[in-house]
Amino acid sequence: MANILRKEAFIMPEGMVYLDGNSLGPMPKGVPDRVATMLRDEWSQMLIKGWNKAGWMALPEQVGNMVGNLIGAPTGSVVMGDTLSIKVFQALASAVKMVPDRRVILSDTGNFPSDLYIAEGLVGLLGQGYELRTVAPEEVISAISDDVAVVMLTEVDYRSGRMHDMKAVTKCCHDNGSVMIWDLAHSAGAIPVDLHGSNCEFAVGCTYKYFNGGPGAPAFIYVRPDLADTVEPALSGWLGHRQPFDFDLNYTPAKGIERMRVGTPPIIQMAALEVAMKVWDGIDIQDVRAASVALQEQFIAEVEANVPQLTLASPRNSAVRGSQVSFQFEHGYAAMQALIDRDVIGDFRAPDIMRFGFTPLYLDAADVSRAVAVIKDVMDNDLWDNETYKIRARVT
Amino acid sequence: MANILRKEAFIMPEGMVYLDGNSLGPMPKGVPDRVATMLRDEWSQMLIKGWNKAGWMALPEQVGNMVGNLIGAPTGSVVMGDTLSIKVFQALASAVKMVPDRRVILSDTGNFPSDLYIAEGLVGLLGQGYELRTVAPEEVISAISDDVAVVMLTEVDYRSGRMHDMKAVTKCCHDNGSVMIWDLAHSAGAIPVDLHGSNCEFAVGCTYKYFNGGPGAPAFIYVRPDLADTVEPALSGWLGHRQPFDFDLNYTPAKGIERMRVGTPPIIQMAALEVAMKVWDGIDIQDVRAASVALQEQFIAEVEANVPQLTLASPRNSAVRGSQVSFQFEHGYAAMQALIDRDVIGDFRAPDIMRFGFTPLYLDAADVSRAVAVIKDVMDNDLWDNETYKIRARVT
Repeated sequence: MANILRKEAFIMPEGMVYLDGNSLGPMPKGVPDRVATMLRDEWSQMLIKGWNKAGWMALPEQVGNMVGNLIGAPTGSVVMGDTLSIKVFQALASAVKMVPDRRVILSDTGNFPSDLYIAEGLVGLLGQGYELRTVAPEEVISAISDDVAVVMLTEVDYRSGRMHDMKAVTKCCHDNGSVMIWDLAHSAGAIPVDLHGSNCEFAVGCTYKYFNGGPGAPAFIYVRPDLADTVEPALSGWLGHRQPFDFDLNYTPAKGIERMRVGTPPIIQMAALEVAMKVWDGIDIQDVRAASVALQEQFIAEVEANVPQLTLASPRNSAVRGSQVSFQFEHGYAAMQALIDRDVIGDFRAPDIMRFGFTPLYLDAADVSRAVAVIKDVMDNDLWDNETYKIRARVT
Repeated sequence: MANILRKEAFIMPEGMVYLDGNSLGPMPKGVPDRVATMLRDEWSQMLIKGWNKAGWMALPEQVGNMVGNLIGAPTGSVVMGDTLSIKVFQALASAVKMVPDRRVILSDTGNFPSDLYIAEGLVGLLGQGYELRTVAPEEVISAISDDVAVVMLTEVDYRSGRMHDMKAVTKCCHDNGSVMIWDLAHSAGAIPVDLHGSNCEFAVGCTYKYFNGGPGAPAFIYVRPDLADTVEPALSGWLGHRQPFDFDLNYTPAKGIERMRVGTPPIIQMAALEVAMKVWDGIDIQDVRAASVALQEQFIAEVEANVPQLTLASPRNSAVRGSQVSFQFEHGYAAMQALIDRDVIGDFRAPDIMRFGFTPLYLDAADVSRAVAVIKDVMDNDLWDNETYKIRARVT
């Protein structure tokens, strides 16, 4: 297995074991210089000319290809922009128009809630009997009935890490004449994704988790290449127009994936993300997966051997688990606060999930053992039993 | 009149006369340091804790209040996020739901085309007889008929600078039972806007023009305070939820303007924008307007006295002209390229508009005279008559 550890590529606090890269990745070392250059040499000196001269206008597709390379998407099928919620809306709105005689959007209760909120909002806008139907994750396949227009799922459950079988679900969806949308929020940069092989029509995801693009980094959207010239973008923005600078009064979508662009891209964030994506040069995502599984197996074994207070909430079978491990503990919120104060950073998801992400670009076996030692100390000595921890407002 | 010239607050190329701040403002001097600090001390050291500890989560409202102060919006009625196109979509989608028995969105041909594209996309999504109706700017008031659900206009025409009468149009819109949306793209930071006084329901705008927030800086949306607790956000995202961290499966909108937030805000861009907004501390927008009008009047007088080849395309009456002056010239594209090569930066808008923006925070009378001298030289000596200028791909 190739060595993919790149600790030197990130700037992180000394002594911290960061098990929350599945929420916000750490800062790649190259970011401050690239951003400073972008500000000093591009924005301040080129001003409006930067759109051409510094290549800003091309960044959404250029960075989209870097992301595409790591999720099995062909060149030219991924474009960056907006936030994940917006891209979910755009994929959904485009997808329902492809199956005009059906009215159901099917999702599951393991989806990230905001994907469901966005669907709820779209259903409210569309009226006309449109419906969001939500079933338990294990019931998705049997729920793909002939009134389902679109199946929208997140591949990796944000709480437990449980994975859907992308190919099997997509096939079942297609056999039923439905359109498939995958949310790769917890997949991209964490596990091998074969978008092209899955044959799904749409995929979306974010880049501030495993791709380390920074807080609020741009999202991405994938459209299957055979559909890219015909799909209706729904959010029909200026930069998705075929000739934005003709200032036509009518919208004509651009060819290909460019039509999924909407407004002016956030260039400072794009510059940071582009540098972050370069950390992945020469890295095979299969090696990342193997290293992640090894770290997770070590973590589960050490926690179970040393911290009987915690109960595994993730699938035990690593083949159906993403790149995170969750444990249940009644006072999980307080316990996570105690860990964070001791520089072991994971996060809490209501009602009782302590979540730990594994990111082998900057985590190794020694980090895992250190984290488990701190967890053991917190649990054995009830260090979480502290009023401050119990009442502290939750934000992440 | 108070002196509002703040040249020292911006970093710009030596010798350039920048008349394109209505497209992309220059970089405020404080931006690189603030962004570097945000990267080094916040993202890299706080990681996920930055959302709370560095106050990232509150930035969209905090910066929204800074913007609100300059457009006559009460505290708590403006929030930042996404792009202007997305905010146009959100305002429109929310607005049509407020008038369920009508089907027409009324706009004008002087609107920025992408506002019309977004409306076209929404109409396509809604079906059910929804229609985008577009009339000439001078016909808007007479076109507000009883089938009009929403009137959506840009206050200042992006080509000519012609202004709508915000109060008169809004009153007529309301007398007709329609909902009013103003796009302030070319107003915010350029002219005094009395949003609260106008009584409009929604307003949207961008911050990379007169507010100098940088390429792709976040957009803003205003909702009239009496509606903020009842309006349907349409793009119902995670951070517009009342309790995002409860991870409910159902969407419950937050109270007030927060419900118009959608996904994770772009924190690097927000940090840059926050610094850019601080340049406005102590500045009265009425003084900015007076200085802008003086520069524009000087520019028109000097051009008309010295450059007969150009024909004024903006209203001659400064009371109905925003903060830009446009001239028509058959070879306007080539001529603008020739000016840009000589460090007088304006921009071109098809088919024949040479556009010059006036931004008295970093422009003075001497700059205007220098620009006119270069324009005269380019025109008198046919310096635009150059194949390179004629064929160069247009981007801005």
